Amino acid sequence: MNRLYHYPISPFSRKVRLSLAEKKIEVELVEERYWEQDADFLLRNPAGKVPVLRMGSQTLSDSTAICEYLEDAYPTPALLPRGAEDRYEVRRLVAWFDDKFHQEVTSKLLGERMFRKVMGTGYPDSANVKAGAKAIKYHLDYMARLLDQRRWLAGNEMSLADFAAAAHLSCLDYISDVDWNRSEVVKDWYAKIKSRPAFRSLLADQVPGFPQPAHYADLDF
Amino acid sequence: MNRLYHYPISPFSRKVRLSLAEKKIEVELVEERYWEQDADFLLRNPAGKVPVLRMGSQTLSDSTAICEYLEDAYPTPALLPRGAEDRYEVRRLVAWFDDKFHQEVTSKLLGERMFRKVMGTGYPDSANVKAGAKAIKYHLDYMARLLDQRRWLAGNEMSLADFAAAAHLSCLDYISDVDWNRSEVVKDWYAKIKSRPAFRSLLADQVPGFPQPAHYADLDF
Ligand SMILES: N[C@@H](CCC(=O)N[C@@H](CS)C(=O)NCC(=O)O)C(=O)O
Ligand SMILES: N[C@@H](CCC(=O)N[C@@H](CS)C(=O)NCC(=O)O)C(=O)O
Repeated sequence: MNRLYHYPISPFSRKVRLSLAEKKIEVELVEERYWEQDADFLLRNPAGKVPVLRMGSQTLSDSTAICEYLEDAYPTPALLPRGAEDRYEVRRLVAWFDDKFHQEVTSKLLGERMFRKVMGTGYPDSANVKAGAKAIKYHLDYMARLLDQRRWLAGNEMSLADFAAAAHLSCLDYISDVDWNRSEVVKDWYAKIKSRPAFRSLLADQVPGFPQPAHYADLDF
Repeated sequence: MNRLYHYPISPFSRKVRLSLAEKKIEVELVEERYWEQDADFLLRNPAGKVPVLRMGSQTLSDSTAICEYLEDAYPTPALLPRGAEDRYEVRRLVAWFDDKFHQEVTSKLLGERMFRKVMGTGYPDSANVKAGAKAIKYHLDYMARLLDQRRWLAGNEMSLADFAAAAHLSCLDYISDVDWNRSEVVKDWYAKIKSRPAFRSLLADQVPGFPQPAHYADLDF
């Protein structure tokens, strides 16, 4: 059986979960409290990060390398388009969310408001929370500009770019940090992706000490 | 004419410069003081980061997305192998250097010892410098373990993984922060990659206020 070592509210883990589910590759989910840097976990991934995917005799790490591997090894349904330029645009946006959005928003809001408590590293830093709350507006507006011209974030087909974005936003939505009323196109986009069967497992996640807000799993939020 | 907006001692820019040179794609290099967040630069790349590549009517950003694009659009010589597993290993290592090594080593040594001065943001934080100097040892040993079993970092062919690693190490070598005597296999690997024609432009880089140390451009270091 394939196994994904993950953390429920980890955007990088969620991106891989969405890819696996969309490709109908079954995995057993194993929750990994990665910050405890357990010795067995470090053997599986010397980088000490989640997600880590066990498939047969292979142990794969880094969410982007894993998603590219899944495209190469399980090409249908495709989450990367065909032309070089279109593929570029998907990869640019995956990096946009996993690098820039993560740094400016996810790490500041989720990092301060959930992970400090989960990991026991003190109170949220309010300057970070403020900076994250400000930056998410800019990012939602950027998404709206893209979605004004395209059906999905990177073009007219759903792709890894949508999964990367939805992975981050769904984690933030778990702590009610996304203002869905800011932009109708962004809300419509999220409603579309949220209603896919691949999303179901994410909507069932629960973190002790952080009760799921009512809108989180509601398809009509 | 193609143009690369870059910063000389930026590992992400260097990885792209190596790919372009290896594929014999000519570019004009334009130095970008990215931390000044000049309005024209932000128009070229709303993420506000270097490198940015102008090719014809296209403006490309994010070093990994750019390198993947170059593989798709200019496949020869190949810097990614053919099989899905081999490609995975290259991408895992690219992420290892650009994510983990960057965070644990490059940002701590280069960030503190060069960029603070260049950007005028005060004195180096000695705790960071110490942490970076400690972490680079672990990373050099990890590279040695890989190179004990393989000719190049990700396998028996040179790949983007070697360029990612060499991009970071060459930046650190500019400030004499790499102990090449720690591992013979790592030194031999660097000597091989350093002597490639694609590396020449990196060895000619100069940063005002930071004279190039003698060993930096010496192929017999
Ligand atoms: N580049 C990695 C980043 C993964 C990552 O940073 N995961 C976080 C959890 S969301 C983690 O494990 N952090 C632990 C650490 O950085 O040591 C990927 O895409 O998989
Ligand atoms: N994921 C980006 C990272 C590039 C990056 O962080 N570049 C640095 C210079 S080495 C930068 O421009 N930093 C400015 C910033 O983070 O705002 C890539 O691979 O191109």
